[in-house]
Amino acid sequence: MNQEIPECLLRPCGWLASPGQHGDLVVSSRVRLARNITGLPFSHWASSSDLSQIAETSLLAVQDCPSMNGATVLPVEPLDSLDRKYLVERYLISRELAESGMERYAVVGRNEMVSIMVNEEDHLRLQVLTSGLSLREAWQRLNLLDDELEERIYYAFSPVYGYLTACPTNVGTGIRCSVMVHLPALVMTQRIKKVLSAVTQMGLTVRGLAGEGSEIAGNLFQISNQWTLGASEEETIEKLENIIQQIVDNERKTQQDLWVESRTSLEDKVWRAFGLLSHARVLNSREALELISQLRMGLDLGLMKGIPYSAINDVIIQSRPAHLQKRAGKKLIATERDAIRATFLRDWIRRYTEKEINRIHES
Amino acid sequence: MNQEIPECLLRPCGWLASPGQHGDLVVSSRVRLARNITGLPFSHWASSSDLSQIAETSLLAVQDCPSMNGATVLPVEPLDSLDRKYLVERYLISRELAESGMERYAVVGRNEMVSIMVNEEDHLRLQVLTSGLSLREAWQRLNLLDDELEERIYYAFSPVYGYLTACPTNVGTGIRCSVMVHLPALVMTQRIKKVLSAVTQMGLTVRGLAGEGSEIAGNLFQISNQWTLGASEEETIEKLENIIQQIVDNERKTQQDLWVESRTSLEDKVWRAFGLLSHARVLNSREALELISQLRMGLDLGLMKGIPYSAINDVIIQSRPAHLQKRAGKKLIATERDAIRATFLRDWIRRYTEKEINRIHES
Repeated sequence: MNQEIPECLLRPCGWLASPGQHGDLVVSSRVRLARNITGLPFSHWASSSDLSQIAETSLLAVQDCPSMNGATVLPVEPLDSLDRKYLVERYLISRELAESGMERYAVVGRNEMVSIMVNEEDHLRLQVLTSGLSLREAWQRLNLLDDELEERIYYAFSPVYGYLTACPTNVGTGIRCSVMVHLPALVMTQRIKKVLSAVTQMGLTVRGLAGEGSEIAGNLFQISNQWTLGASEEETIEKLENIIQQIVDNERKTQQDLWVESRTSLEDKVWRAFGLLSHARVLNSREALELISQLRMGLDLGLMKGIPYSAINDVIIQSRPAHLQKRAGKKLIATERDAIRATFLRDWIRRYTEKEINRIHES
Repeated sequence: MNQEIPECLLRPCGWLASPGQHGDLVVSSRVRLARNITGLPFSHWASSSDLSQIAETSLLAVQDCPSMNGATVLPVEPLDSLDRKYLVERYLISRELAESGMERYAVVGRNEMVSIMVNEEDHLRLQVLTSGLSLREAWQRLNLLDDELEERIYYAFSPVYGYLTACPTNVGTGIRCSVMVHLPALVMTQRIKKVLSAVTQMGLTVRGLAGEGSEIAGNLFQISNQWTLGASEEETIEKLENIIQQIVDNERKTQQDLWVESRTSLEDKVWRAFGLLSHARVLNSREALELISQLRMGLDLGLMKGIPYSAINDVIIQSRPAHLQKRAGKKLIATERDAIRATFLRDWIRRYTEKEINRIHES
């Protein structure tokens, strides 16, 4: 039995629709909490009857929360590998959950802004995704959901350590905040090295587009806190927001410097990306991401107009392998994907070139 | 005193206007004759009064020939370095003549189809340039001019060796026939190596776009005879035409093979070139030539229509460094040239994209 992904998850990600603060450079903010039910073993060493009990207790509570009104419950087990990858690409489940099976669930709220994994590393992983730099807003929503759940579930909690989690790195607040930033000028000037080393020294981790273990590509960096002890959720968020604000200022300054020093070369980069996205017949994931990144920089620099940042954010997700295959309605090998990715991006960009861009390009 | 290039030489090359036989793959045919006036030393070891006498005798005779009616006489000495390079790029003078000075002349007939260098390696170098594979037609014109000159000048001639020339490699007929062919598929499949080695074994030389000593670029090969002894002019031409015919057939067959084996990758190559030519802001000579070559292959394969081959041939010349600088009206450094080359090619291709190409591209 192959359970299909419901219709509502086949549309553009709702949470990306509004640009959000610093939406030019900040793609998205994400806050997640790790929570466990008291008196039940952590999922990794739970028996199948324990897992079943965790799932049952969790799902009953989750579906009862006002924040999760209208949510979709997706059991992982019946999903085929393509559907699982699809949900990973949409940031709705982790790769770890995608590789699991029985008694694992994803619960996805409306707009995919709020979602919960059941029986991942922890019994419950609650997350809120928002566009732009919006950790506070995300945290407000998540805190509300957390409170609603806490009224329905006895969380494993220690007055000394805080929330107890399967992995000690999450003990305490159980919070992880991540911000995805686009830093093309810092990469181009190689100033990124200094930025990343400073960020790491401040106790943050940096990952690529696809999260843990993923390569950096398309000048996209996912920056998250590592600490969950000794700082409140609000302090964690404030610290991360301040750091991101500094990085964003640095990127903006670097773009301006580059504009003054090597305007023609920047214009060349941006318009070549535009030319290739508009005409290539074969585009692999990595090249597509690089070209979209350069196009985005063209918007930052005012070289082109008329493509909303939310459309850029969305097309990054839509051109990933499982998304291409879901739209095609079948599994495809890499060369086939590269061809339909090129077609998809060509059609995508043509929607805009017929309007504003051409006018600017002519000037 | 800086003698300007006359207006008539600032237009597209007239001899490129008609496509000619096999105009898709053969850019141009060129036949030249090396001739010397009897009783005067070869130009290399002529005194300045000898050079002056050679020039005077030659120019009087040349201007009297009906074939050279309306021709322009250009003394090399007063031309600045840019103008000299400009004439080299148009194939009107050799690099050797461009580096010389006093008593050296170029005489350029209408349409630039017929031209004569005075006091190059030989006293007279007569050439006819035509588009496509048209050695016979070129030879007819050149033979006529040669006859006209022979009525007015005593050529240095030996009943045993034939026409005497400064360099022994030209003794005999003094003829050199060259054909410029475009062989993208043979290069792509690396079959070109075998072709070139066969061609060399048959006593032909292969050079790049810019003649002797120039690198191969843009998949353009200039193939010429080496022999001037033991074969009549007609035999030389027939042999070269046959060889070119075989190479052209081979290229066509290879394009068809590639089309069957890797159509998507061919389409990708062609449309990427189109995208970059349409949008890049910086293009160096070499990249421009490669992109124009790929665009031309797109015409060969029927992937696009509406750009005449004669326009492709012309744009190759027009986008070369001295041509760009002549149009700009000033000397430019390499980075400035790369920027105006990109602008020039963008404007050039836009003339066509507004018509046929877009329609095809949409399909």
